[in-house]
Amino acid sequence: MSLLSSLQVTVVGLGLMGGSLALALRPHVRRLVAVDTDPAVLTLAQERQMIDAAFVDLAAGVQGADLVVLATPVRTILALLAQLPALRPEGCLLLDLGSTKEAICRVMAGLPAGFHALGSHPLCGKETAGLAAADAALFQGQTFVLCAPAGEVDERINAVALEMVAAIGARPLFMPPAAHDQIVALTSHLPYLLAALLMQQAAAGAAADERVWPVSATGLRGAVRLAGSDPQMMADILLTNRPAILTQLHSFGQSLAGLAALLEQGDEAALLRWLTGRQAEYDVYRQHKPS
Amino acid sequence: MSLLSSLQVTVVGLGLMGGSLALALRPHVRRLVAVDTDPAVLTLAQERQMIDAAFVDLAAGVQGADLVVLATPVRTILALLAQLPALRPEGCLLLDLGSTKEAICRVMAGLPAGFHALGSHPLCGKETAGLAAADAALFQGQTFVLCAPAGEVDERINAVALEMVAAIGARPLFMPPAAHDQIVALTSHLPYLLAALLMQQAAAGAAADERVWPVSATGLRGAVRLAGSDPQMMADILLTNRPAILTQLHSFGQSLAGLAALLEQGDEAALLRWLTGRQAEYDVYRQHKPS
Repeated sequence: MSLLSSLQVTVVGLGLMGGSLALALRPHVRRLVAVDTDPAVLTLAQERQMIDAAFVDLAAGVQGADLVVLATPVRTILALLAQLPALRPEGCLLLDLGSTKEAICRVMAGLPAGFHALGSHPLCGKETAGLAAADAALFQGQTFVLCAPAGEVDERINAVALEMVAAIGARPLFMPPAAHDQIVALTSHLPYLLAALLMQQAAAGAAADERVWPVSATGLRGAVRLAGSDPQMMADILLTNRPAILTQLHSFGQSLAGLAALLEQGDEAALLRWLTGRQAEYDVYRQHKPS
Repeated sequence: MSLLSSLQVTVVGLGLMGGSLALALRPHVRRLVAVDTDPAVLTLAQERQMIDAAFVDLAAGVQGADLVVLATPVRTILALLAQLPALRPEGCLLLDLGSTKEAICRVMAGLPAGFHALGSHPLCGKETAGLAAADAALFQGQTFVLCAPAGEVDERINAVALEMVAAIGARPLFMPPAAHDQIVALTSHLPYLLAALLMQQAAAGAAADERVWPVSATGLRGAVRLAGSDPQMMADILLTNRPAILTQLHSFGQSLAGLAALLEQGDEAALLRWLTGRQAEYDVYRQHKPS
């Protein structure tokens, strides 16, 4: 018996993630409502017949919602969580799609008794942000992390979340918020910062010598791609996951210095061993992440 | 009047670059000969009817060649350049496709009088190496750097090289070898080393926590892709361009430390300004490298 099909779901924030969730989820729920601060986004969603109703006003959008899904940048989620108890004194089921989970789950744990919340983070993304890039297939085959706030034991939100994850074709993975944040500092936030730093260095080079862009190829293109990410979204991520990211940056800086020393020594055999080790790791990685 | 159509061209090394050049060039030359140390590669080239003749033996392969193109890793090119004068006492036209140019052009400048040589580097690449990935369209629209060795004033090799670059659809760009090597240290060698370092850090993380690969997405995938590059090819590149690469690594390390300090301070406005600056640079970069 499906729980999901009886629910009114309100998605707050119709960007790439919220919009894709709305598209993927709508066939499986009773009624899908969207809230966004940008009226043009809501108009587009209605034109594409993605939703049943649209509201700029959060209070109006969450009325009657059995499940509210917060799909904005992290610190906007934190602000929305602070507003919800006044707007919905009786509580509701609650999920979010924020990219860091510790700060969000901490606030979720302090919500009034009627709220049953679960932090979540679908591990998928695209070069392009915004509703125009939304895609019902975005979550297919991807990991969907679920993080229970401290003290949370409600079975209904767990069951609804698992049904939702199954409905959109993703793979659920429960883990503590702190473990999630430490892993994404390595797998997502560090790669972003390296791309941004490389972008800065390459742009400075191009400013000094106009031949820099012509004398670059697909290697650079792939390496700087993440520097195009939305700055506000990334600032929210970085500021809500500072200790774990600083640990990763520090570790990277040490390895970088070690590699520079290895190259300076010019020990060919040692250098070749090091490079071969990285290629071997890449081969193992590709077996785990083939596409 | 075409110079190219009257020439026998010998390509030494049928990897991705040499194989792609053979495919792209064959319709435009009198006769195309290939040399490779791997008989299986030569058999594949003959089965695909890419070449007119195939030799494992360098001496046999370069006999009768008007133009020899060296398309191996950089230090193999250096070794081949040392052998050529004994094999072709009368000299020939000579090009290479090596990824660094200073060391190669230095040796080219010391070749006997009958040799007329030009260093070159097509700025293109693929994830996959080897003849199986060769593609006649690989060079289409890409920059093809041409570097004259010191003292070289021969007009015939310049004219042949320009005809060849035009025939394969690339864009010629003459520059001094030192300028080339400094630019690719930034646009190619640094991105490769960052990918390798990130691969090492992520693999160490995955060894400590099996959830690391499931909790990673396309961001990591793009960021580590270059770590899969051939280690011997990369060792040759790194060892023949050490000073320029060390300068780029040092600069990156300093920026990394500065970014860590910025994050540690937690000054939201300053962080957002920095991130916005990188996104703006990425937008400018994309205008120059749209695909």
